Amino acid sequence: MYTVSVPEEGELVRDVALKSKSCAVIGGGAIGMEIALALKHLGVDVHITKRSEPALPRNVDPDMGTILVDHIKEKGLHVYFGKGIDSINGKEVVESVTIGGEMIPVDFVVMAAGVDSNIDLGEKMGIECERGSIKTNERMETSIPSVYAIGDNCLSHHMIDKTPARIALATTAYRQAMVAGVNAAGGDAVYDGTLGTFVSFVGDLEVSATGYNTPGAERAGYEVVSGRANTLDKPTWMPDAKEISIKVLADVETGKLLGGHSIGTEGTDWRINMIALGIKKGMTLSEFASVELAYCPPVSELYDPLLMATDVALRKLDAKKRRRG
Amino acid sequence: MYTVSVPEEGELVRDVALKSKSCAVIGGGAIGMEIALALKHLGVDVHITKRSEPALPRNVDPDMGTILVDHIKEKGLHVYFGKGIDSINGKEVVESVTIGGEMIPVDFVVMAAGVDSNIDLGEKMGIECERGSIKTNERMETSIPSVYAIGDNCLSHHMIDKTPARIALATTAYRQAMVAGVNAAGGDAVYDGTLGTFVSFVGDLEVSATGYNTPGAERAGYEVVSGRANTLDKPTWMPDAKEISIKVLADVETGKLLGGHSIGTEGTDWRINMIALGIKKGMTLSEFASVELAYCPPVSELYDPLLMATDVALRKLDAKKRRRG
Repeated sequence: MYTVSVPEEGELVRDVALKSKSCAVIGGGAIGMEIALALKHLGVDVHITKRSEPALPRNVDPDMGTILVDHIKEKGLHVYFGKGIDSINGKEVVESVTIGGEMIPVDFVVMAAGVDSNIDLGEKMGIECERGSIKTNERMETSIPSVYAIGDNCLSHHMIDKTPARIALATTAYRQAMVAGVNAAGGDAVYDGTLGTFVSFVGDLEVSATGYNTPGAERAGYEVVSGRANTLDKPTWMPDAKEISIKVLADVETGKLLGGHSIGTEGTDWRINMIALGIKKGMTLSEFASVELAYCPPVSELYDPLLMATDVALRKLDAKKRRRG
Repeated sequence: MYTVSVPEEGELVRDVALKSKSCAVIGGGAIGMEIALALKHLGVDVHITKRSEPALPRNVDPDMGTILVDHIKEKGLHVYFGKGIDSINGKEVVESVTIGGEMIPVDFVVMAAGVDSNIDLGEKMGIECERGSIKTNERMETSIPSVYAIGDNCLSHHMIDKTPARIALATTAYRQAMVAGVNAAGGDAVYDGTLGTFVSFVGDLEVSATGYNTPGAERAGYEVVSGRANTLDKPTWMPDAKEISIKVLADVETGKLLGGHSIGTEGTDWRINMIALGIKKGMTLSEFASVELAYCPPVSELYDPLLMATDVALRKLDAKKRRRG
């Protein structure tokens, strides 16, 4: 679909892949799945494993995650999600991996199991750190006045409930940088927090998410109501109408949006951006359901999947409230 | 790009077109431009005329409208915007039209110069009408209790300043119908008004708009500040990055969003939907500028054209305020 220049590490992996028959990818996040599919594309037999079973468990709900798991299986990957890795075996060179007690011969292994911040500089300066990240206040200032931190290695806060959050996304870094820049230059800007809004490709599928997913929201203490729509992004009679799934989440107590995620082949990002904007403004499901959307058949559906999922959530919320009197 | 079934009137126009060499299209709105391009596509030499000079003068600003005019000229249409039509000439059959004093031989003429509501039924019932439309309150109820009106023939209200507005769009009709339906069934719903949010195609160009454009906002009594960005929808190094122009409008006094319009080949609709949501929530430029958007290179740009246009408007607003002390 697109070509990018491959950095040195990428070239190394590619050279090894072109000489190999099989490999294991350890880590099944967005990057793990991306590299596994790229290696499969180069003709390598790929085994991918990660500790937890659902795909992208911090971003999408398990029922949506299965769409991704099914897709990478269809693409020919051997998927061992929920099994982790017992051992990498071999002398001098890798000979096999053991996954869930099963020994699988592989020629090489790619580790894609998370990132760690390098906060050495901050620690040397005596800046307050927590959870391996540099702590910042809402002005993106560290514990040392006039020293700011942004991006992957800073611990900032979540937009919804202001709890500490470290989100390693360019989107987050960019917005934090705007705030830090204004403040460093003598202005007074406040970062309103992150929702972890993101879009990525997993094979042919575009996946986007913002805010909490159901497990995340429940961990944060919310009772969640959600609505899901699986439909087409344009009228059925448009030959280029494409399937899209979207899920909208809200807090039962207040009816306010908590998050959303979407999987399709295009246009998932902006629907999720709409939810991100709705969360930023503290919108309820019922308010969000009445947003005015542009419509014409070659572009969109009159009753957009986003509105459909919102309405499903809204009806479930109303039913819940009626039951409780 | 897409195929649709042609209704009877369309078939008639097509049959005439296939036997003709040239025609005039009177009316250069979205429908006029669409049919003119379709006729050109069938091999007809097309002259298109309308009274006002800018393209879509109620939806986009003249500087953006020129993108559309240039495009239909490139497609081979003879464009006489701002000239209207003096006469249609001929006995029994059309022989020519006179536009701005110039006589142009044509084989047939297509009228695409606006729509009128059929409000006969409403008038017979004694329902209050105004400007050729059926008046409704914010519950979509007419002057006769329990009789509701929605869609193209009802006079409803604008979302921003609650002034009377008749917008002949499916989007509007759909949202009004939701409100009327709830109320007719004994519920209590309020229509929060229309922004005229729309998307359409003009040749290869997708055009979207919401809220006021600059002339419209000025007529409504606002002092307008706007920002425009002409850029790519993805990073420059993505081979499928496409040009997009977007303009964001706000009220100088309050800084609140008033509207926006965008022209590109795709993705104009959701950027405009974001502005529609921002208007609904009374967002200021500065608040809107900090929305969190999903980013990855094959899908989007980190500093999205929408944010760029918003920032341009914001800086112009700040400069205006500084100058005024």
